[in-house]
Amino acid sequence: MAYVQKEVFKIRTDIEIAQNTELEPIEEIAKKMNITSNQLEYYGKYKAKINLKNKDLNKKVGKLILVTSINPTPAGEGKTTISVGLGDSLQHIGKKTAIALREPSLGPVFGMKGGAAGGGYAQVVPMEDLNLHFTGDMHAIGAANNLAAAMLDNHIQQGNQLNIDPRRITWKRAVDMNDRQLRNITSGLGGPTNGVPREDGFEITVASEIMAVLCLAESLVDLKERLSRCILGYTYEDEPITVGDIKAEGAMTVLLKDALKPNLVQTLEGTPTFIHGGPFANIAHGCNSVLATKTALSHADYVVTEGGFGADLGAEKFFDIKCRTSNLEPDAVVVVATIRALKMHGGLAKDDLHHEDLAALRSGFANLKKHVENMGKVFGMNTVVAINSFSADTPAENNLLSKLCEAEGFRVVLADIWSQGSAGGEEMARAVVEVCEEPSTLTYPYALEESIEAKITKVVQKIYGGVGVDWSPAATRSLHQLERLGFSDLPICMAKTQYSLSDNPTLLGQPKGFTVSVQDLTISAGAGFIVILTGDVLKMPGLPKKPAAENIDIDQNGKITGLF
Amino acid sequence: MAYVQKEVFKIRTDIEIAQNTELEPIEEIAKKMNITSNQLEYYGKYKAKINLKNKDLNKKVGKLILVTSINPTPAGEGKTTISVGLGDSLQHIGKKTAIALREPSLGPVFGMKGGAAGGGYAQVVPMEDLNLHFTGDMHAIGAANNLAAAMLDNHIQQGNQLNIDPRRITWKRAVDMNDRQLRNITSGLGGPTNGVPREDGFEITVASEIMAVLCLAESLVDLKERLSRCILGYTYEDEPITVGDIKAEGAMTVLLKDALKPNLVQTLEGTPTFIHGGPFANIAHGCNSVLATKTALSHADYVVTEGGFGADLGAEKFFDIKCRTSNLEPDAVVVVATIRALKMHGGLAKDDLHHEDLAALRSGFANLKKHVENMGKVFGMNTVVAINSFSADTPAENNLLSKLCEAEGFRVVLADIWSQGSAGGEEMARAVVEVCEEPSTLTYPYALEESIEAKITKVVQKIYGGVGVDWSPAATRSLHQLERLGFSDLPICMAKTQYSLSDNPTLLGQPKGFTVSVQDLTISAGAGFIVILTGDVLKMPGLPKKPAAENIDIDQNGKITGLF
Repeated sequence: MAYVQKEVFKIRTDIEIAQNTELEPIEEIAKKMNITSNQLEYYGKYKAKINLKNKDLNKKVGKLILVTSINPTPAGEGKTTISVGLGDSLQHIGKKTAIALREPSLGPVFGMKGGAAGGGYAQVVPMEDLNLHFTGDMHAIGAANNLAAAMLDNHIQQGNQLNIDPRRITWKRAVDMNDRQLRNITSGLGGPTNGVPREDGFEITVASEIMAVLCLAESLVDLKERLSRCILGYTYEDEPITVGDIKAEGAMTVLLKDALKPNLVQTLEGTPTFIHGGPFANIAHGCNSVLATKTALSHADYVVTEGGFGADLGAEKFFDIKCRTSNLEPDAVVVVATIRALKMHGGLAKDDLHHEDLAALRSGFANLKKHVENMGKVFGMNTVVAINSFSADTPAENNLLSKLCEAEGFRVVLADIWSQGSAGGEEMARAVVEVCEEPSTLTYPYALEESIEAKITKVVQKIYGGVGVDWSPAATRSLHQLERLGFSDLPICMAKTQYSLSDNPTLLGQPKGFTVSVQDLTISAGAGFIVILTGDVLKMPGLPKKPAAENIDIDQNGKITGLF
Repeated sequence: MAYVQKEVFKIRTDIEIAQNTELEPIEEIAKKMNITSNQLEYYGKYKAKINLKNKDLNKKVGKLILVTSINPTPAGEGKTTISVGLGDSLQHIGKKTAIALREPSLGPVFGMKGGAAGGGYAQVVPMEDLNLHFTGDMHAIGAANNLAAAMLDNHIQQGNQLNIDPRRITWKRAVDMNDRQLRNITSGLGGPTNGVPREDGFEITVASEIMAVLCLAESLVDLKERLSRCILGYTYEDEPITVGDIKAEGAMTVLLKDALKPNLVQTLEGTPTFIHGGPFANIAHGCNSVLATKTALSHADYVVTEGGFGADLGAEKFFDIKCRTSNLEPDAVVVVATIRALKMHGGLAKDDLHHEDLAALRSGFANLKKHVENMGKVFGMNTVVAINSFSADTPAENNLLSKLCEAEGFRVVLADIWSQGSAGGEEMARAVVEVCEEPSTLTYPYALEESIEAKITKVVQKIYGGVGVDWSPAATRSLHQLERLGFSDLPICMAKTQYSLSDNPTLLGQPKGFTVSVQDLTISAGAGFIVILTGDVLKMPGLPKKPAAENIDIDQNGKITGLF
């Protein structure tokens, strides 16, 4: 291990690095995976959708590597930076590699500054396109979502043959914008020709169930069947009304036919990168699309992907939802941590992170330990711990962390791809290649046939390390409703704070003896999971007092400023 | 003239014809105009955006031909079919030709069946793409529109330094969907963290002022300046609040940077066709973008374009708004009529059109006569009357119409491009080429310096043939407000029924002695015109009882049905 990353050397910003890199034409990137240019649908020179026959996708040739992390802290973990850097490093040591990541959302870019995918010398490009309309997937999802909403209200307006109760509509309209003004509205005002007055609201597009559906669908037919099952609301008799009931699934699938095709871009080092699908990691499963992952696996020997948030949410849902649904099974898991973040888990405040603090590191290690143990004991996976190096990390801290890992039998590597690119990730890449050769069998914390209560309890106990579950009266009512409607056999999707293994964001490290409070349950019947709400989830962000949009500009030559 | 179009021969539908035509790769289409492939941004194989430097656009080389029509009737005029067919016919006789048309909207496709651009053997392809997301322009316009709305409400929420009156906000949110439920809403409900409660509503995206702005902007800088001037609402002191006041113009321009670039597709006969921009023809000017028209004119010898609705609205706004703004000047005008439609203007019901009726034709001719006279006497243009042939037209009817035209000194040609393609439009093409060589100078019905009242009166008297204008109290109040704010020098944009020369849709033929009632005036300060409302304008359509969407489907191979 070498201690190489020095922040003092960071003269170039992410955007400067990205703008100073010459991109390869996208057909050259595709060629690295033996994807021919007639399988590409170009969106300019550096973006393409892949148009493959389904039969091509089930020839898995590659090893799948899941990148996950400790519970996030304000110190930053750099999970995506490691994912991108691992892909580049695998390519660097001669492996035919592809990366499969989530697609960012447009709206939030105008609130806070737009985000790179990755950072430093481990980024996905072209950055501006990724942060703006990209290939139009989000807009297509919004249109499909809003077509269902318009057809539902039109059905009520035109006589309401299905007896839909306007007070029980659960489907929201969507817009890809941070717009708090639309969280709660009354719609259908203005008299009999202008709809039926009711309480209504908007979500940001990525929160739409359609995003989760798109990410789990494996074909146009599967997409249409899943859309058809999406529940829009309930009748006066409390029976569900689905997309299929209002005959919207065909038109919605037509709107999504291109959005379903994976998008191909590249890293700064020219590693093929699929950026496709980006569901919320709380009310949804938080992974890129199954189709992108399978396309990558059928065309590369090593495929790097990641889950949302920390391993308690992101990896758990990756396994219990994405892998179960699609018969995917990783060959290795990389758990990302930083010394900075572990010191916060050990009780240090953000302002004190630049001081060496071995005690805090030792204490915070408990968080990393629990996640790595979960990967092995619960899911049966072989793991590499990747320490994402920062310049303020001291040799003593690095030594201590290595020793703590080794004492637990964890494989640990230091990675400095942020400042060095793939050259700083060779050791990580070689460790991952080694682990991929070791046998493993994916196991699950719960069986689908178990009761909803048992599933939640097992996740809380096995994954989070809690003692049990408290049920609110609303949650109990919803539980009985979902059992009555026959949804008991679906996997669960926990909506919990990402900051703690518990449902209390202030309990860092490895909290013990806690219970998790279930506030309510909702059903995503098209995506195929039950959402377990352990607190309020905001599905429509707002803009800050000074939105980033105020500083975004473009000159006469098309050069954009203020986006990053 | 030959009487060739036979409906009995119409075995193939528009969609069948389109699907059975092999398209040329879009770079081959571009090559016909000496546009090289590195000036193209591909959207798949058959669509591209053109990325040109502004200096290239002011080298006009081509002749500009405006296609317009009599007042539309339920019988159909086929203005776009003639536009496409004229382009194909000009290419057929060896002229380097391009066509520049409006871009359709997505939402209405799910209400009624999607529309071809053109019909029969005179169509623009690929049809499905045109009717779905196309190159994403509509979504970009919606996003820019909704960013302004979100930033406006966020400004009020965050302290309202600009003192904006929530009761006086005029800017609506937009969605590209027929969704009557969103016409009138109350937004910002749910307590202090969720916005400021106010009356609000949505328009369909094409009705957004941003669409009109995009169609008139000649560069990124012009676009940004126009956006900056758009009025969003008023303060408690009734002073306008613009996009510039809330600093949204830069980010909005970034969202629109690709939408501003003209889209290139082709006709069934491979004629280069720009499909770009589609503002409403009532509350906006109803023409494709200035940039597309100028790109076409700088790369082709003949450019065919069209206005919305009939010549009283579409051609008048083409001249008074689009030509004035951009210094465009047509070299010829084609006025399209059908014998069927003229018989309706002569009093015949739609069910009686298949009978020969010379008296009705003679009477209905008055509508055509007035429009053709306007083109010459008011605008100084040289005109060709194009009779779009239908199989039920009789030789006697065709003879009578030719004689009526010739008696007035009108050049008239019969065109049957619908069933024959360009072979049926040769005579029309040759007549247009001839007319283009004749000198003409564009003149206007009013000068910009005249008062708003004088402008309206002149359009009503000179173009519509009415006697005067009635003002509602609201219109008079708005007039004084707009004069106070300094907008008197802008051109006017009449929002009037398309079905009559008057503001009463039931007065067909050439009504006389009527007055036009002005209900209200609104300002589109970014687009740069004053909208004169002569009745209610619905800016958010609804879905019918049985929406077309219910029958739209897609199979496992991606084949779409029910869209047309």
